[in-house]
Amino acid sequence: MHFADRLLDACRKKQNALCVGIDPRWEQLPREIRARHAGGTLDAMASAFEEFSLRVLDIVAPLAPIVKPQSAFFEACGPAGMLTQQKVLVKARQLGLLTILDAKRGDIASTAEAYADAALAGTLHEGKRHAVWSADALTVNPYLGRDAIEPFLASARRAEAGVFVLVRTSNKGSGQFQDLSCDGKPLYQHVAGAVGAWAAENIGTCGFGDVGAVVGATHPAELALVRTWIPQVIFLVPGYGAQGGAAADTAAAFRADGAGAIVNSSRGITACFKPDEPKWEAAIERACRAAIQDLAQVTPMKALGD
Amino acid sequence: MHFADRLLDACRKKQNALCVGIDPRWEQLPREIRARHAGGTLDAMASAFEEFSLRVLDIVAPLAPIVKPQSAFFEACGPAGMLTQQKVLVKARQLGLLTILDAKRGDIASTAEAYADAALAGTLHEGKRHAVWSADALTVNPYLGRDAIEPFLASARRAEAGVFVLVRTSNKGSGQFQDLSCDGKPLYQHVAGAVGAWAAENIGTCGFGDVGAVVGATHPAELALVRTWIPQVIFLVPGYGAQGGAAADTAAAFRADGAGAIVNSSRGITACFKPDEPKWEAAIERACRAAIQDLAQVTPMKALGD
Repeated sequence: MHFADRLLDACRKKQNALCVGIDPRWEQLPREIRARHAGGTLDAMASAFEEFSLRVLDIVAPLAPIVKPQSAFFEACGPAGMLTQQKVLVKARQLGLLTILDAKRGDIASTAEAYADAALAGTLHEGKRHAVWSADALTVNPYLGRDAIEPFLASARRAEAGVFVLVRTSNKGSGQFQDLSCDGKPLYQHVAGAVGAWAAENIGTCGFGDVGAVVGATHPAELALVRTWIPQVIFLVPGYGAQGGAAADTAAAFRADGAGAIVNSSRGITACFKPDEPKWEAAIERACRAAIQDLAQVTPMKALGD
Repeated sequence: MHFADRLLDACRKKQNALCVGIDPRWEQLPREIRARHAGGTLDAMASAFEEFSLRVLDIVAPLAPIVKPQSAFFEACGPAGMLTQQKVLVKARQLGLLTILDAKRGDIASTAEAYADAALAGTLHEGKRHAVWSADALTVNPYLGRDAIEPFLASARRAEAGVFVLVRTSNKGSGQFQDLSCDGKPLYQHVAGAVGAWAAENIGTCGFGDVGAVVGATHPAELALVRTWIPQVIFLVPGYGAQGGAAADTAAAFRADGAGAIVNSSRGITACFKPDEPKWEAAIERACRAAIQDLAQVTPMKALGD
């Protein structure tokens, strides 16, 4: 089943389009988990991240359609962290969650293919595909151009997975290059146009393609513009919550029926408690429900429940 | 000691500026190594990559100043491959080689910091820095802008390491965005300018900064232009050899005394033999020496030996 259709199905089942970012940071873990993984090694840090992340998945699986593990925090623990990343992705799938591996990969030719297959279709070895991260989608960086993106599209299409291309990122300095006026329009408009063309190559029943765009909630005017340029592209919207974007800032990302966008919240959900809070699991559940309610009040997302 | 000075020292000791790319691919491994790691699992593939890569390091360490492991091929083997990547980087350092981890990372804020510290300064955990990849330099992608690059600079400076920013990549489609004319000059010129400014923040005794530029040998006219724009920036030049760039195409990257550039060859050295070749180690050594001779004949690199 086409990635966009799978995503819309998942959103309709959960009646929302919240993506929960899994970005474990040692300082933000519950103190009880840190105490169980003391020792001060990166292996201990990886095992703490694993316990916390798997618990978060249990809590959010009944509520949200999709999660987005941030690869950098797992890589920070070294090889043990990469094993944790793998376990988190496997468990998310077992719980019926869709997954975006947020790794912002980008390279050329067979190197891009290696990243893409690791994330999506599986590494080909001795005639068989072997699951590595087995995510449902991967974030990628467009700077290297079309032929560097193509191996990601090929791997995604083999696996009926998705690719989210950075268009307008949520950081303050994103405009340094993305806003440059190129032949009369900003660079991110050129990138958006390319993403629209890639998405149009493979449109699902729902009317959206399998190539999405990362467009930050912290730039709501630009987000609304990008939506008009590429109506068939699913938006992954970071920047909501802890980064400063409001729920209303994400509204323009959605089609009237609530399709076409997922809104990510990471720290706003998984770091919503003080480390000493004994009832941190309940706090995460409340924060997740609150984010869904917040988004439903001011965006077309609420139509998913109709 | 400043990264640029360490790099120039290493180049002068070896009297050349060849960077050997470590990009293991199963199909290109010697048949004897594949036979020792049969079994068809990714763990077996990782152990084959490890045997081959460590052997390559032994062969090239007396000849070349620096190596560049390509993270994608290690990641393709999953967590076991990441352990192999770590061992390759550790062994390279033990052999006195400098290392560039070619991972083309790019993300924002604390996420960028996590990637940067894993690659360069070490992950901070419980008040101590823990080595993860411990490379001497990392490749990064500029699309997200200045504030996304800063954590990489900070980590590099803490470790006296380097950062190589993609400016003009070696792939055929690199111009799709990099060549767009922005406010009267191509995007890659804007990126080059930013790289020049970052490099100028921390210049070594040799006159080069700790922020380098990736500029492909496959675009020699652009390479020569970029060199005139940013004279204080070290170039990492991919695309020589198997990708089609000639030695003469890299000449403009060097200062007259042979400083200022390193030229990468991956497949041209590590995949220079047929899998059945029993004397593959001798073939790698010959290919490495031949690349050095080829570059010395037509570039200022030969001045490193004076």
